[in-house]
Amino acid sequence: MPKIAIVQAGTVLYDKAATLEKVRKYVEEAAENGAELVLFPEAFIGGYPKWNNFGITMGTRTPEGRQEFKRYFNNAIEEHSEESEFLENLAAKNNIHVVIGVVERQASTLYCSVFFYSPQGYLGKHRKLLPTALERCVWGQGDGSTMPVFNTSVGNIGTAICWENYMPLYRMTLYNKEIQIYLAPTVDDRDVWLSTMRTIALEGRCFVISACQYLKSSAYPDDHALRKEYGNDTVLIRGGSCAVDPLGTVLIEPDFTQETVRYTEFDLSDITLGKMDLDVVGHYSRPDVFQLTVNEEALSTIVKK
Amino acid sequence: MPKIAIVQAGTVLYDKAATLEKVRKYVEEAAENGAELVLFPEAFIGGYPKWNNFGITMGTRTPEGRQEFKRYFNNAIEEHSEESEFLENLAAKNNIHVVIGVVERQASTLYCSVFFYSPQGYLGKHRKLLPTALERCVWGQGDGSTMPVFNTSVGNIGTAICWENYMPLYRMTLYNKEIQIYLAPTVDDRDVWLSTMRTIALEGRCFVISACQYLKSSAYPDDHALRKEYGNDTVLIRGGSCAVDPLGTVLIEPDFTQETVRYTEFDLSDITLGKMDLDVVGHYSRPDVFQLTVNEEALSTIVKK
Amino acid sequence: MPKIAIVQAGTVLYDKAATLEKVRKYVEEAAENGAELVLFPEAFIGGYPKWNNFGITMGTRTPEGRQEFKRYFNNAIEEHSEESEFLENLAAKNNIHVVIGVVERQASTLYCSVFFYSPQGYLGKHRKLLPTALERCVWGQGDGSTMPVFNTSVGNIGTAICWENYMPLYRMTLYNKEIQIYLAPTVDDRDVWLSTMRTIALEGRCFVISACQYLKSSAYPDDHALRKEYGNDTVLIRGGSCAVDPLGTVLIEPDFTQETVRYTEFDLSDITLGKMDLDVVGHYSRPDVFQLTVNEEALSTIVKK
Amino acid sequence: MPKIAIVQAGTVLYDKAATLEKVRKYVEEAAENGAELVLFPEAFIGGYPKWNNFGITMGTRTPEGRQEFKRYFNNAIEEHSEESEFLENLAAKNNIHVVIGVVERQASTLYCSVFFYSPQGYLGKHRKLLPTALERCVWGQGDGSTMPVFNTSVGNIGTAICWENYMPLYRMTLYNKEIQIYLAPTVDDRDVWLSTMRTIALEGRCFVISACQYLKSSAYPDDHALRKEYGNDTVLIRGGSCAVDPLGTVLIEPDFTQETVRYTEFDLSDITLGKMDLDVVGHYSRPDVFQLTVNEEALSTIVKK
Amino acid sequence: MPKIAIVQAGTVLYDKAATLEKVRKYVEEAAENGAELVLFPEAFIGGYPKWNNFGITMGTRTPEGRQEFKRYFNNAIEEHSEESEFLENLAAKNNIHVVIGVVERQASTLYCSVFFYSPQGYLGKHRKLLPTALERCVWGQGDGSTMPVFNTSVGNIGTAICWENYMPLYRMTLYNKEIQIYLAPTVDDRDVWLSTMRTIALEGRCFVISACQYLKSSAYPDDHALRKEYGNDTVLIRGGSCAVDPLGTVLIEPDFTQETVRYTEFDLSDITLGKMDLDVVGHYSRPDVFQLTVNEEALSTIVKK
Amino acid sequence: MPKIAIVQAGTVLYDKAATLEKVRKYVEEAAENGAELVLFPEAFIGGYPKWNNFGITMGTRTPEGRQEFKRYFNNAIEEHSEESEFLENLAAKNNIHVVIGVVERQASTLYCSVFFYSPQGYLGKHRKLLPTALERCVWGQGDGSTMPVFNTSVGNIGTAICWENYMPLYRMTLYNKEIQIYLAPTVDDRDVWLSTMRTIALEGRCFVISACQYLKSSAYPDDHALRKEYGNDTVLIRGGSCAVDPLGTVLIEPDFTQETVRYTEFDLSDITLGKMDLDVVGHYSRPDVFQLTVNEEALSTIVKK
Repeated sequence: MPKIAIVQAGTVLYDKAATLEKVRKYVEEAAENGAELVLFPEAFIGGYPKWNNFGITMGTRTPEGRQEFKRYFNNAIEEHSEESEFLENLAAKNNIHVVIGVVERQASTLYCSVFFYSPQGYLGKHRKLLPTALERCVWGQGDGSTMPVFNTSVGNIGTAICWENYMPLYRMTLYNKEIQIYLAPTVDDRDVWLSTMRTIALEGRCFVISACQYLKSSAYPDDHALRKEYGNDTVLIRGGSCAVDPLGTVLIEPDFTQETVRYTEFDLSDITLGKMDLDVVGHYSRPDVFQLTVNEEALSTIVKK
Repeated sequence: MPKIAIVQAGTVLYDKAATLEKVRKYVEEAAENGAELVLFPEAFIGGYPKWNNFGITMGTRTPEGRQEFKRYFNNAIEEHSEESEFLENLAAKNNIHVVIGVVERQASTLYCSVFFYSPQGYLGKHRKLLPTALERCVWGQGDGSTMPVFNTSVGNIGTAICWENYMPLYRMTLYNKEIQIYLAPTVDDRDVWLSTMRTIALEGRCFVISACQYLKSSAYPDDHALRKEYGNDTVLIRGGSCAVDPLGTVLIEPDFTQETVRYTEFDLSDITLGKMDLDVVGHYSRPDVFQLTVNEEALSTIVKK
Repeated sequence: MPKIAIVQAGTVLYDKAATLEKVRKYVEEAAENGAELVLFPEAFIGGYPKWNNFGITMGTRTPEGRQEFKRYFNNAIEEHSEESEFLENLAAKNNIHVVIGVVERQASTLYCSVFFYSPQGYLGKHRKLLPTALERCVWGQGDGSTMPVFNTSVGNIGTAICWENYMPLYRMTLYNKEIQIYLAPTVDDRDVWLSTMRTIALEGRCFVISACQYLKSSAYPDDHALRKEYGNDTVLIRGGSCAVDPLGTVLIEPDFTQETVRYTEFDLSDITLGKMDLDVVGHYSRPDVFQLTVNEEALSTIVKK
Repeated sequence: MPKIAIVQAGTVLYDKAATLEKVRKYVEEAAENGAELVLFPEAFIGGYPKWNNFGITMGTRTPEGRQEFKRYFNNAIEEHSEESEFLENLAAKNNIHVVIGVVERQASTLYCSVFFYSPQGYLGKHRKLLPTALERCVWGQGDGSTMPVFNTSVGNIGTAICWENYMPLYRMTLYNKEIQIYLAPTVDDRDVWLSTMRTIALEGRCFVISACQYLKSSAYPDDHALRKEYGNDTVLIRGGSCAVDPLGTVLIEPDFTQETVRYTEFDLSDITLGKMDLDVVGHYSRPDVFQLTVNEEALSTIVKK
Repeated sequence: MPKIAIVQAGTVLYDKAATLEKVRKYVEEAAENGAELVLFPEAFIGGYPKWNNFGITMGTRTPEGRQEFKRYFNNAIEEHSEESEFLENLAAKNNIHVVIGVVERQASTLYCSVFFYSPQGYLGKHRKLLPTALERCVWGQGDGSTMPVFNTSVGNIGTAICWENYMPLYRMTLYNKEIQIYLAPTVDDRDVWLSTMRTIALEGRCFVISACQYLKSSAYPDDHALRKEYGNDTVLIRGGSCAVDPLGTVLIEPDFTQETVRYTEFDLSDITLGKMDLDVVGHYSRPDVFQLTVNEEALSTIVKK
Repeated sequence: MPKIAIVQAGTVLYDKAATLEKVRKYVEEAAENGAELVLFPEAFIGGYPKWNNFGITMGTRTPEGRQEFKRYFNNAIEEHSEESEFLENLAAKNNIHVVIGVVERQASTLYCSVFFYSPQGYLGKHRKLLPTALERCVWGQGDGSTMPVFNTSVGNIGTAICWENYMPLYRMTLYNKEIQIYLAPTVDDRDVWLSTMRTIALEGRCFVISACQYLKSSAYPDDHALRKEYGNDTVLIRGGSCAVDPLGTVLIEPDFTQETVRYTEFDLSDITLGKMDLDVVGHYSRPDVFQLTVNEEALSTIVKK
């Protein structure tokens, strides 16, 4: 009966230290409440600067937009870094799994990633395969080498970030790795998100947990143009975190009103109840008609011989 | 601006003639109301004998169950048959497209199929690829040779029957054929069906139209055991037909109370509004990571050399 | 001694018919002046809606932005279409090669492409491999199957669009196909563009011809927000078309002041003068140290078996 | 904010001692002016005997040319040598990085190399991969084992010598090693060199620093035929050293008139401004289409088992 | 008892037609005299412009030199070309093997090659692996894919061009392919050449046949600077063609005075006389101590996936 | 300017003491004449019993032949022995390098070796890798552990014995060790030997010194059958010692008439004159095509674990 905490909160934009402090606070709170795994939303570290446009229009990037990007870049973290060690220690100290959306920096490109930590240490990461819309101007694309499903004491866990949840072939890949707890960190706060989560739970016969940011305009620094334009209290991302069981039953209904931590607890063996009549990577597949080839090699422009 | 009629009704079980008469009635009604296409539910001709078990338990089939199957078999239709001509004429006479779920008989096997007719004649069919649960004891499996998307004056139309809607790779195949109006005849009357339809509309950026049977126990013949057990007014399938646009907006909300015909009308070019930021067979795909091979050959156990 | 015409002009935005008429006018003018090939800028058909943002900020696309995208989508052309035939006829009638930037539509995704026509007919196309910044939200990515160099009566011609010119591995691919006349349609009107063109000419030992749009705010329709904001005479793209020979000598200096057609004529055999001491795909390469593998297969998410 | 000194000066040809003295003078001057790194031109030690032909025509080498080569050979230095220690001490004593073009002797072959020294000691070297034109008769080819990018307190530094700057695959290799300060010692004094440096800065989003020799005919010994022919004041190499930032802005304009030391100072974090919209080894690459294999093994005709 | 003709003659420089005519004359003469194979010197087609420097000194290539190179480039031939067909027909018509040095053009790089023709057609080629001295500025390097030994009716034939004869590892490769008639087209007219040919015959236990050009300054066109400088009668290459048997006996002594065709006839089975006590790829080898790895792959900077 | 003495003399067969005395005499003579190194022929100590067959025919060894072998065996010397000390002292006392061919005995096998002594002591040895013809019946094979090139005050010295000079891969190994003075003790007195020595000098760009025995039938003991058959004055080995410089110039012409000591003196730095255009282990190699792996391990049938 794993107990999961879902953090519905927002980044302190462009303030990595304050954001990490917030992470610490929520991890400790989740642990105190008996959670074995705590899920943070997409891009929690690094931030999702909603309504920002980085000075980008067709054919131009303004100097101010470039400066904004640099500020954003400097608040991203690397896979092997002081910040990652901080998270690793946090997971160990609180004896909890931490799964958290981060803006990851490798060399000069940013990625929208999720880092996984168990109490025993760093497990690995997933990089978003396809950023959506303007995200394509700030984040690069992940490849097939970071599509893990980890077998942990909590269950088999993996992740699809935001609109990756609309990529049928990526979902199939996760189902095929026997995912049990499907973690969906996001910033998508539409009403319809819950429908999507239920459908994935039904289709994949897994538990689906989604953590969405709750972000107000006060998250931007005082001196930021959007802060000035929208004041402190405009809701930029309204939350909507939720959880669904393998038969589509909603375990946690969305709350669109506040920063909050939600908890859910369930029995993994209930997955079997659902797989009885639908198993899209087992008896409910047609390998004679459909065959999906997945390339899990790292794609690198330059390789050493 | 195609106008679509959705028939939410039930078969007259084991009475092909009466069922065809019912088809005629609804096609004419739809045409009179200006519809260019009318969609019937899954297995409308031939029927979906809900709660029947055909005398099948683990290890046994009773003689009575075999007789029941024979009765069911005799109410199925062939692709090239009198009944099919009847439907063809109906479509021509009423200048309407007819898409209808049928129990199809080929040699000695039954299939759960959908037949397509335009005012110009018979277009072709789709056979359900994977029957669900006990259906596997009465229907065979279709293969990759009947997965059409037809380019008609109404738009590009194709179909996924009932839980085929939970087959991600089949859906990808339809999206790839540039389906615009995704037709989902079904007998699934759960609450959660709407969530699934919305998710498919969002994922595929297409219009999704689902027609579900509304079937009462009175549909069984007077002499049938289930009629005797449940009387006339037990609701076996409660409907729930619906329609959704490519951004997930519900165009027709489910009605779980009655036999009815529902109408919807929309602008196909709105698909572009949705494809702008999600096109899972175009800019929102990763062919370098995922490649789906689809076998559209007819599978036949015995072939001439 | 091929004579090349370089059209420095702008699209009539969201008015395909008027744009095609403009194409006709310039093709005829170029032919009358004895040109054997006429090069149009990037996205000439379909247009480059400079300073437009399609209502896209981090995390949102506005309904108005989606409508704008639909309008843009409808002004794109397909590879095999009426508009393409129009261009084919134009090339034939005027006995000239036409190389033109177009916004290409395939199914529901747009691409930034270049179409090639000889007097004998359509030759083929190149699709931009990597859109830049906001372009990534409106155009998909081409793949290795459209990287042609055509052997024509004018010489061996190929193209790199806008910032593809900063992709060293793509340039290597073109050099390896023995490109002689390197066509660089663009909307990049920075001062530094000429430096880049000279460097490519020097590096590839080829003639480099770049055509840039000259676009004023009057190109937007009367009712367009940007037209209202900027009036008729704001210069959105200021031109800067140029031509360089294989030793880096500038044949045509940029003109940043007007719509214009520029002409250049040169002797292809002068390429040898440059290859004498630099041939990066021949004697000036180190295949024992560097080996570039190029995948020219079409990448398709779904393939028929 | 690293401060870089660029030495634009010439070798005292065939006089190693006098040349080393000149190196000492410039290193001290650079250090006094606060530079953290000083870059010398190509072949500064050993020399670039411009306009010399070593008695080589097609099919012949004259005895006099061989004697000239021997003189040249004797003025080359080895990697581990007294001269190298001299440079090491110079760097340490003046607390400065020294990057210097040398003619390197290994066994009986000469190489055009660059040696790197930090205040802490010798870092390593790069050997020119492909000599140009007549250089091929006096210098051998380096291999993939000497293509370093060093992470120093000044930044990540590496080098491409003279026309190696026209080798796209070598440049890609340096970019991939996260070069920040791209050092381009050269003897190329053409006008067009600046265009090339700007393009590399733009393409690689790095700071590009080029040091060119300024060499007059008086650099040849009194008894040398070219000294006699050209007198003391003929300019053999006219300089043109320059520096460019990652957005292509020229930080130091070429001076073609004199021996001089130029200084530039910049903020490495500005690289991010440029990488935002172009990162050819990150988000602006297509590893699914282009893959470059780099062999960094030392190539040796004879290896011990 | 194969009979071999050795053509000691010179190219008509920069006059491909006249050179081919000369080839025709000598092939016919050789055939009339009963030869089964005729060997021409290095670079016979395309020419060896002795004492030319193509305007190359350290650091410069003059415009005149580039023009000269272009002239030279235009007189080279391609592998599959009209000129090659001419040679093929000549071999067929005269029922003779033709082995001839050519300057080969592929794309924009020249190579010093030898083309082999039997009476049955074109056999293949060898490209010089390492040009010498100034040749490195006009010819590229061949690779391991063109190191053939052909089994013909005359015997097993292969070739090493000019100073390739000083490459022990290439010679080993030819010996290992069971070369019987080692063909050494050259322009090396030193006295010591005969010593080298004898040593190779002794070492490889094969028949060695060397054809050297005999070239006078009149071979340059009237308008050429070297023609003007040296008049008509300066001997640029003085010949010295020779033949040696496997025990080092000189079969044809060099003639340094004229254009001439020399003939030799021998018994291939005499090779066994020599292999008895020396077989460097057989009993006289030490594979436990020395192992030579030969890479016969074509080296290509760019390869299709 | 090393001065080398070449001893052209013969062993006193089967009389070790007399032979050592002869060695002493020639070493002193050489030292008096200012030589810094004295080279003796192959097998000088131990002897080369020319025309002897040791009673060996196919399938038989006679008892007399066995006795002859025993006599020969007893006149061989060991590496660490009284005789070797004698030589060591001789070198020290006369302040000269001694390089001498010996028949070396280890356990029960004989080897054809060369021992090297400097004035400072014993340097090491080389064992012939492959005896020729009947030598294979009296001498074993050396291995890769004795292929030294010694860096001495005279220069870098190494050796190839007799027909080892026809082993291209062994020569490559010596060149690779930067041999400067290539010592070739031999008993090969054919005319063609000089050609071979010249070719090696040219190929390796080194000074080649060859010392051949001058041996008359009187060298056999009075009681020996061959002495009886040929008398005292039949010339068994006629000399032919020689020296060549790196450009192939003969420094000492062979003398085929007498026992003699020849002297040569040269400038090692002239090697650079030759390496300028040929360096088969440097710029004139193709490690991408040919790679020679050399096993310098001692080969021993029985080894301790």
